Amino acid sequence: MPSEFDIIRQYFVHDHGRDDVVLGIGDDAAVLSVPKAHQLVQSVDTLVAGVHFPLETSPQDIAHKALAVNLSDMAAMGAEPTWFTLALTLPDDNEDWLKAFSESLFALAKKHNVQLVGGDTTNGPLCISITVNGFVPEGKALTRNKAKVSDKVYVSGTLGDAALALAAWQGDCLLREESKTYLNERLNRPQPQLELGLLLRNYASACIDISDGLISDLKHIADSSDVAARITFENIPLSNDFKLNITDEALLLPLVLAGGDDYELCFTVPEEKQSEFEKLINEKNISVACIGEIEAGQGVRCLLNDKEIEIQGSGYEHFVD
Amino acid sequence: MPSEFDIIRQYFVHDHGRDDVVLGIGDDAAVLSVPKAHQLVQSVDTLVAGVHFPLETSPQDIAHKALAVNLSDMAAMGAEPTWFTLALTLPDDNEDWLKAFSESLFALAKKHNVQLVGGDTTNGPLCISITVNGFVPEGKALTRNKAKVSDKVYVSGTLGDAALALAAWQGDCLLREESKTYLNERLNRPQPQLELGLLLRNYASACIDISDGLISDLKHIADSSDVAARITFENIPLSNDFKLNITDEALLLPLVLAGGDDYELCFTVPEEKQSEFEKLINEKNISVACIGEIEAGQGVRCLLNDKEIEIQGSGYEHFVD
Repeated sequence: MPSEFDIIRQYFVHDHGRDDVVLGIGDDAAVLSVPKAHQLVQSVDTLVAGVHFPLETSPQDIAHKALAVNLSDMAAMGAEPTWFTLALTLPDDNEDWLKAFSESLFALAKKHNVQLVGGDTTNGPLCISITVNGFVPEGKALTRNKAKVSDKVYVSGTLGDAALALAAWQGDCLLREESKTYLNERLNRPQPQLELGLLLRNYASACIDISDGLISDLKHIADSSDVAARITFENIPLSNDFKLNITDEALLLPLVLAGGDDYELCFTVPEEKQSEFEKLINEKNISVACIGEIEAGQGVRCLLNDKEIEIQGSGYEHFVD
Repeated sequence: MPSEFDIIRQYFVHDHGRDDVVLGIGDDAAVLSVPKAHQLVQSVDTLVAGVHFPLETSPQDIAHKALAVNLSDMAAMGAEPTWFTLALTLPDDNEDWLKAFSESLFALAKKHNVQLVGGDTTNGPLCISITVNGFVPEGKALTRNKAKVSDKVYVSGTLGDAALALAAWQGDCLLREESKTYLNERLNRPQPQLELGLLLRNYASACIDISDGLISDLKHIADSSDVAARITFENIPLSNDFKLNITDEALLLPLVLAGGDDYELCFTVPEEKQSEFEKLINEKNISVACIGEIEAGQGVRCLLNDKEIEIQGSGYEHFVD
């Protein structure tokens, strides 16, 4: 088995060349510069084999997802991601696996100009923990706690795709052959909504990424902001592939409302900013949909055919998988 | 099993009250301020049960060590630690374990004024990954690569204690009853040399913490600085308990030279700063010893009775445990 130093050298030292990395990998710690009038945004997310992804998931997909879910937290804060540390626990030194993992990791890192600045490789059951960093101009971070009554509730992209792919993988439904690529990509290769997150700095009153499910995550906004949210099921954007493959109506509501893993953004926009926001979003060709409104009260209500749906549970929580 | 949110709320939300934590745990990410004219120092270290500590280690010791080894990296950089994120993978929700773990974690955090700003709890084999952050004034970080010929080589504290406790735990030797507490504390409760690290900003040309063993870690300084190091075994500081318990002479050299886990600092001081440095260290009552000198060349030589010891291997590397 190659030593820790060999692994780090061979697969994980990429001199990405960000100017704000004063000292990268190779010392006891990295030395980093945060620009004037900016704040640091930092978050950690862990993926465990067999819990957050099936054991047979490809190393490329695991690497992509591990970084993407962290970048998604930066998007939800309106932050520009900058650096990350990687704690990688591996059962063995399968070099093919490491090569595939690191290539996929650095492909996504390069796409979003985010640099690996620290790593620790250890021996044990497969587990990937990433701490990601980003910048926001002072006071511009998007939080969950500033939604106000009459603000509009939005989501980006389409919901339920990742949950449908997971349901099919678990044997709860079958997918059409022509939809498999799209839906499995939605599960395994989530795209962090970073461009939208930056743009929302000037428009959103609250923001969260949908990792646990729409109801559960919107409830975090409602609870933190001490308001309620009302959404209309018919307004939730669904992909064509999703609609084509939902043959069992009993799956529709749980997948759309409580399915996690889409990593789209859910956010609120004050009414007076709505038209300017939608104009800009159209120009940028970013896909968002207004699905409801903030109200006085508590919790999340969802209407379907003008009737309130009874919501069971609050969505997926990783720890109780 | 309590949900992830309950665990975070119950055990890990400590409003420690650092002014530079603009937004702590509870959103998609923390928002943090780095003071003007300072750089951020960041590092990650993971402990895996059965690899980095015996499975029967107490939750208090695991928590202490997981944070201490990270704080030790800050000491080695001359950084003042500020915040950390915790990725905690747990096989179950043993609440007694969690309570003991979190109390010990926050006791050490409080002692060094370092605040938890992000966490992720996941279900799986026990694994603790911490990313720690600290500040240094611009350009003041201690690195490994600036040792110069004729600089003096120092270590803090005493060496070999943790390795001796580990050897005893592995059944390779027996400890005297009266030494067990001290030596096991040295293994399980390392004390990061943060006060010394801050002081070294003005004196050390290179610095590293001894996690893998003296020879191995000093070799990192030598290699990074493109110099050699010569040390004298008799000058290496040993504790009374260590000396009392070394009955098997064959253990002496490996434990002192290649034993890891002491988390003392190894550093170099230019000759012209030596007397001022030693005066200050005496005033502060910090224990350090000059054990050798930097030379031209490559690698690390160790003299014992004026003869060069043959060094086997380069010390302990975590991944090949």
